[in-house]
Amino acid sequence: METLNKHVTIRNFKEKQIEESLLNSIIFSGTKASTSGNMQLYSVVISKEKSQREKLLPLHFNQPVAKNAPVLLTFVADFNRFTKWCEINNAEPGYNNFLSFYTATIDALLVAQNVCIAAENSGLGICYLGTTTYNAQEIIDVLELPRLTFPVTTIAIGYPDENPELTDRISLNGIIHSEKYSDYSNEVINELYSRKEELESSKKFVQENGLTSLAQVFTDVRYKKTDNEFFSAKMLDTIKKQGFAF
Amino acid sequence: METLNKHVTIRNFKEKQIEESLLNSIIFSGTKASTSGNMQLYSVVISKEKSQREKLLPLHFNQPVAKNAPVLLTFVADFNRFTKWCEINNAEPGYNNFLSFYTATIDALLVAQNVCIAAENSGLGICYLGTTTYNAQEIIDVLELPRLTFPVTTIAIGYPDENPELTDRISLNGIIHSEKYSDYSNEVINELYSRKEELESSKKFVQENGLTSLAQVFTDVRYKKTDNEFFSAKMLDTIKKQGFAF
Repeated sequence: METLNKHVTIRNFKEKQIEESLLNSIIFSGTKASTSGNMQLYSVVISKEKSQREKLLPLHFNQPVAKNAPVLLTFVADFNRFTKWCEINNAEPGYNNFLSFYTATIDALLVAQNVCIAAENSGLGICYLGTTTYNAQEIIDVLELPRLTFPVTTIAIGYPDENPELTDRISLNGIIHSEKYSDYSNEVINELYSRKEELESSKKFVQENGLTSLAQVFTDVRYKKTDNEFFSAKMLDTIKKQGFAF
Repeated sequence: METLNKHVTIRNFKEKQIEESLLNSIIFSGTKASTSGNMQLYSVVISKEKSQREKLLPLHFNQPVAKNAPVLLTFVADFNRFTKWCEINNAEPGYNNFLSFYTATIDALLVAQNVCIAAENSGLGICYLGTTTYNAQEIIDVLELPRLTFPVTTIAIGYPDENPELTDRISLNGIIHSEKYSDYSNEVINELYSRKEELESSKKFVQENGLTSLAQVFTDVRYKKTDNEFFSAKMLDTIKKQGFAF
């Protein structure tokens, strides 16, 4: 539990490389995660080489963490390998659909989170790059991902060169629902998010952007409706182009 | 790493209940997982009561594990709470789209896997129920999940009453790709899956179903094309009905 409870995102890494045996043992622990019908519907692409990293960096919006981590791991929802196995065994695969895409997504994410925990337990630090879904098509091109695969997320990984404080979270009673979803009154919402709003860093964000509430930092700066809709359409096109029909 | 590496799925549980404080501490560890922009786009619904469990059981296709576990936890992709916060803070939310659905899915799954690891580390056992996506609409109705939420997965959890062997996995070199995806030749596929095909349990499955290959057990019995396509269309309808437009 301690490894889980002290998780912080690391964005600054030492130059030190990760030993290959350590990296393999971490990914091995990843593959011990639950998987749908034990089909293991995922692959992991390791990016270390300069030429590949230079291509990936702008696709992750030039986030410094995507540059200074020694290793990027892209977790791929993969129905290609399993489908090939079916095809050479006289079995008709039926995995070119949205449900299968989603099932492989789940598989890939359980592995990713196991890898993060194994990494942190070994003294490494991690940062998830949410940018993977924004530029999935371009990442597919760089990593040469075939039909019936899709890059779900990427983690930057390496030896931490910082020791950030724990991130705030809303209180547990804002997350847990007993038996049925109990929807939130305005009063409860205000209470749940007040701690986050009161943080000095939050106030600074609001002020720097000339806004009147922390929520506007999310809606007007970080995760804007127009951007979400643009990347949404782009992502759907890519899913279909990868052979998952709907 | 040991907790990760010795993971096995538990389908038989003791009658013993999970103490509330333990369950809360496990879910608390779940919420320490990375989350997109620290938005915490998830909720967890706890199902213990008989009346609710009786409604959920057929939706999980009457799997015995869904009945005999003392607790089911349904992990919900949740943009409802965050959207409400935006709305009462004069911020225009833009999260009623597919990208946001997928982002919240990722958040929910990272929490789910953390919860599983925290549970196993506390002597509990877990089983993922993949049936959640198949009957998402009906589960939404039973759990009263509002607009902009979606049930991603469910885990059955309790004190193990069995001690199963580790499950087979294909070898790590079948999962890892260095710098670019290296697609699989028939020879490599045969090698990767041979261990699984040679298992006595696999041979029994093939024989009992009158089939000629293990792959056919998946395509003709367990995960059939017609079923996948049916549940795919159903799931897409539900995602849209929950307010994630595309």
